Amino acid sequence: MSILVVGSVAFDSIETPHGKVQKCLGGAATHFALAASYFTDVRVIAVVGEDFGPKEEAVFTKRGIDTRGIEHAPGLSFHWTGEYTTNLNEAKTLGTDLNVFATFEPKIPEAYKDSEYLFLANIDPVLQARVRSQMPNVKLVCGDTMNYWIADHRDALDKVLKVLDVLLINDGEAKMLSGETNLVKAAEKVMAAGPKSLVIKHGEYGATAFFSAPSFPRMDAVPNPFRAPALPLAEVVDPTGAGDSFAGGFYGYIASQPALTPGVFRRALFYGGVMGSFAVERFGTERLQDVRRAEIEDRFRLFKEISHLDEHMGAIGA
Amino acid sequence: MSILVVGSVAFDSIETPHGKVQKCLGGAATHFALAASYFTDVRVIAVVGEDFGPKEEAVFTKRGIDTRGIEHAPGLSFHWTGEYTTNLNEAKTLGTDLNVFATFEPKIPEAYKDSEYLFLANIDPVLQARVRSQMPNVKLVCGDTMNYWIADHRDALDKVLKVLDVLLINDGEAKMLSGETNLVKAAEKVMAAGPKSLVIKHGEYGATAFFSAPSFPRMDAVPNPFRAPALPLAEVVDPTGAGDSFAGGFYGYIASQPALTPGVFRRALFYGGVMGSFAVERFGTERLQDVRRAEIEDRFRLFKEISHLDEHMGAIGA
Repeated sequence: MSILVVGSVAFDSIETPHGKVQKCLGGAATHFALAASYFTDVRVIAVVGEDFGPKEEAVFTKRGIDTRGIEHAPGLSFHWTGEYTTNLNEAKTLGTDLNVFATFEPKIPEAYKDSEYLFLANIDPVLQARVRSQMPNVKLVCGDTMNYWIADHRDALDKVLKVLDVLLINDGEAKMLSGETNLVKAAEKVMAAGPKSLVIKHGEYGATAFFSAPSFPRMDAVPNPFRAPALPLAEVVDPTGAGDSFAGGFYGYIASQPALTPGVFRRALFYGGVMGSFAVERFGTERLQDVRRAEIEDRFRLFKEISHLDEHMGAIGA
Repeated sequence: MSILVVGSVAFDSIETPHGKVQKCLGGAATHFALAASYFTDVRVIAVVGEDFGPKEEAVFTKRGIDTRGIEHAPGLSFHWTGEYTTNLNEAKTLGTDLNVFATFEPKIPEAYKDSEYLFLANIDPVLQARVRSQMPNVKLVCGDTMNYWIADHRDALDKVLKVLDVLLINDGEAKMLSGETNLVKAAEKVMAAGPKSLVIKHGEYGATAFFSAPSFPRMDAVPNPFRAPALPLAEVVDPTGAGDSFAGGFYGYIASQPALTPGVFRRALFYGGVMGSFAVERFGTERLQDVRRAEIEDRFRLFKEISHLDEHMGAIGA
């Protein structure tokens, strides 16, 4: 099945305690697409500038990602500059040069119209809503957002929430969006605004999925929350894109399955953690470009091993 | 099997967003003993003042806890005053009246000498070490500590670490003790100082156990870390004693089992979370005084349901 993702394809300049990179390929749609590409077909809608050349294009095409929806515009691509100091959970943004992204107007290629799954990465909710309305027949819509849209574009965001099946955000965003400090209450409030499920990402502590509807994912009653672990990592080289990689693994796995059952949703959260754990091992998208499928399955088993009572495999992968 | 716990039996005055209580029964040894009492025999060593009467005594004895090691001294019991504002993960201490606790000198009753399990709750590490040396034949020693001892009594604490099998502390304490911000590196450093296992409590995000020795708990190789979930709770009435209740459930379950296998250690972490989740439902020790065994088993199953891929029980307990 095909996932259509709309979001940013960008260049990132990043400094972490492990080093510094200038203008490496990044952007939410990039991380998402690469992570999802290990599971299913992915199509990207984004805009790039003249600094996005065949080398960058090849990062997508090598993974079989459809780039026909990446529009090339005169000027430079979106460029984000940020640093992580001791707290690798939180980036400090040093610069945001929107460039061609400032006037981004997503256009959906005809060949993308039959996509079954839609992912609205973190962009202006007005654009998210517009893309959503042009894809009336998708089976499932997931989305992301961030503090900027929550604080200053609330009306537009509220409209997006109404048409989302799953919203994936982090703790801080969930609290900000709901005005609640308790995550259960935050989830209830957010889901009352639309999404059938809220997935809250806790960084190094994993993620929690909340559900509001018994029919989603196909249960007799509203399912309990589900908590997926994160892998304890001795070294996080670059956290940039971890959340988008999580979303890509999560949604890619869902799209690869015949139906969205509770078991599929749970395993999808594990695959999200798996892809997030790979993403942070190197700068930018470096690691996501060359993961092997067997490594993904090994790490999935490791996630099970570190969280399930009756799995004792010894020290695989550790 | 019997657990001997040495620690504080105190009175707590607590304010949380859910209300205010004056001088309710508290203290690390109290929470620990009550939580552990649902699994095994518990013996307490502590000191109390004249304000600790038959009513308080009965809280212990009703749960079958051996109180012969609770010394009665002239004066008042240890009294802690604290409040939680919006962040229920962190208490603000408003007052610490040590009272009779200031000159606490643990004495081990003859009848306690055959205890197989020793828990050194958060007290002066000099006293922890003294108790440990008087119990040379215990099968397992677990302990706790806090920022105060880490910062200002490091030499004494280092001696305790050398004789501990398992140290249970929270994220902040693990980082402070190791000087590392990464939890995996923190765990390696802490375990290099003695403990065969470090259990780091993450509050609402659960707990992670790290291991340093293949023989503990009985593996061919050093086990991978293990992550236990916490129950997402819509209402936390009073977080006081959650960590000690976690320790009580964890250690109580271990002591109730014939041998410390990897499976027992993992289930113990789940039972720790279970008892912690009960503890915060009401003020002080109120909830821990009257949990039913069937409720504990139901909640254990709920912990499995919210964390295991292949358990879909619908909406029990939710």
